[in-house]
Amino acid sequence: MAKGRLLVSIAGWEAEGWVERFRDMGKGREVVDAREPYDPATIDYAAVWKPAPGSLAGHPKLKAIFNLGAGADAVLADPALPDVPVVRVVDPDLTARMTEYVTLNVLMHHRRVAMFRDFQAGKSWKSPYQHAAKDLRVGIMGMGELGKDAAEVLIRLGFQVAGWSRSGKPVAGVEIYGADGLDAFLGRTDILVVLLPLTPDTRGILNRDLFGRLARDGVNGAPTLINAGRGGLQVEADILAALDDGTLGAAALDVFEVEPLPATSPLWSHPRVTITPHNAADSDPQATGAYILNQIDDFEAGQPLRNVIDRAVGY
Amino acid sequence: MAKGRLLVSIAGWEAEGWVERFRDMGKGREVVDAREPYDPATIDYAAVWKPAPGSLAGHPKLKAIFNLGAGADAVLADPALPDVPVVRVVDPDLTARMTEYVTLNVLMHHRRVAMFRDFQAGKSWKSPYQHAAKDLRVGIMGMGELGKDAAEVLIRLGFQVAGWSRSGKPVAGVEIYGADGLDAFLGRTDILVVLLPLTPDTRGILNRDLFGRLARDGVNGAPTLINAGRGGLQVEADILAALDDGTLGAAALDVFEVEPLPATSPLWSHPRVTITPHNAADSDPQATGAYILNQIDDFEAGQPLRNVIDRAVGY
Repeated sequence: MAKGRLLVSIAGWEAEGWVERFRDMGKGREVVDAREPYDPATIDYAAVWKPAPGSLAGHPKLKAIFNLGAGADAVLADPALPDVPVVRVVDPDLTARMTEYVTLNVLMHHRRVAMFRDFQAGKSWKSPYQHAAKDLRVGIMGMGELGKDAAEVLIRLGFQVAGWSRSGKPVAGVEIYGADGLDAFLGRTDILVVLLPLTPDTRGILNRDLFGRLARDGVNGAPTLINAGRGGLQVEADILAALDDGTLGAAALDVFEVEPLPATSPLWSHPRVTITPHNAADSDPQATGAYILNQIDDFEAGQPLRNVIDRAVGY
Repeated sequence: MAKGRLLVSIAGWEAEGWVERFRDMGKGREVVDAREPYDPATIDYAAVWKPAPGSLAGHPKLKAIFNLGAGADAVLADPALPDVPVVRVVDPDLTARMTEYVTLNVLMHHRRVAMFRDFQAGKSWKSPYQHAAKDLRVGIMGMGELGKDAAEVLIRLGFQVAGWSRSGKPVAGVEIYGADGLDAFLGRTDILVVLLPLTPDTRGILNRDLFGRLARDGVNGAPTLINAGRGGLQVEADILAALDDGTLGAAALDVFEVEPLPATSPLWSHPRVTITPHNAADSDPQATGAYILNQIDDFEAGQPLRNVIDRAVGY
């Protein structure tokens, strides 16, 4: 059987590198760059990141769509998305990177890095009592592969860790709250870590109402928000208002309603907001490329596709 | 048998709280505050932090000295130290806190927090490739309880971790270098974490010569120094010179030659130096108090003292 043709359609990232990488690694598989004219009738697979809505329609031979990141909300939001399997990347490297980001940001807030930076700027040898990790309650929203791995490291460091997920499915060693337990989960959470997928149910979930239900009795004062899920989960006007009235003590945001974050956003210069450019868990391009090409090879050899998204729940 | 009298002699920390704590927790044991007049002939034990040299001499009934922190170098440096056992604190809480500090500071350098903070200040959505932990080589000098615990967490996060110790004693899962292997250890180290005790052999070991032997080919450029051991290990003039000529990329220092760090030190305002006020692993006063009082109770019941320092090696 001839190797099927792979269309590469990427927005927001550097497309050139991805096209070259698939060509280099594809062992002769034809790779088509969506930025150049091509015949849609010749395409068997698509590897995509935030493709323009409608751009995947009208490919009669298309058999599968591979999303180049963990979150497939941009693809699933396309009303003209062809009815073929959408596969998400499941990559141990990506999981490890997200755990780095979560561990770093939880520790930065727990150890009050911003306060000690201010002390250093003032040449001040002040040392207010530093609580231990066991005194802090971390709550993780989203207990898939990413949430479970981060929880494991945070527990090893001594934090009190709970998780919240739609299903409430048990996770060994972690106190899990389900859909009904959101209030109780938020009420015991000093540092909220968000790793949810973006679905119609979760859009805008990080709003004023939710922030107001977080714990008010944490040892470091007002609660902290860490969002490394999706920008669409958060209402940025509510984050700013909650920071300014003391409902939130600080926020570390890797994702935003609009990316890149516009220069006009007041988040950039808020003294208690830490911004990173959606790089909490960069894909390793080599690993992602190999993952997709291996799946296509296996599929052409008669194996089923793995990690296909359930469109009903959105992840 | 009557309960022996405990002298509390503390410099640099708030002595009042410690005296009260020992009285509260001592179940009737007499606790003597060294800042007030007392009869040295009545003292059975001393709990100390950086006592004035000579101040422990002339206590004829003294049976043991308990050092309130992990590092006993200040006590051992006293030429008039009575010839009685010196006990150090071994506290799982203290180990956990040190691992927090090490993990936080390794991650801050690995994830280039300072660079992204600068980008944020410039409202710049730049995202240069972020390496994964597996691409970074961490080297830990000092593989006692603290080094072993930090190594375990860093390995879990994916870093390449090696350890160096005087003895070269194997540690499960960690590549260990002994006294002869210092060159090889330094040559493979991008982030140097120092948890050594201060002894005549280690004083000033963190100097220009050592910095020049660290790896020059790390993915993040010049190597990073993280010292949470003792200030006497480091030559601060050499750290500054090495930062300024590119031998070191950055330094995170929790300890200093003189503490509190004098306001005149150029370390305070160096853009690539992170200063914390010797709080990497604050003792939990309750846990330390309980540890010492339990040891005294056990000793009075005929048990041997535990974690007695070997004066020949200094820890």
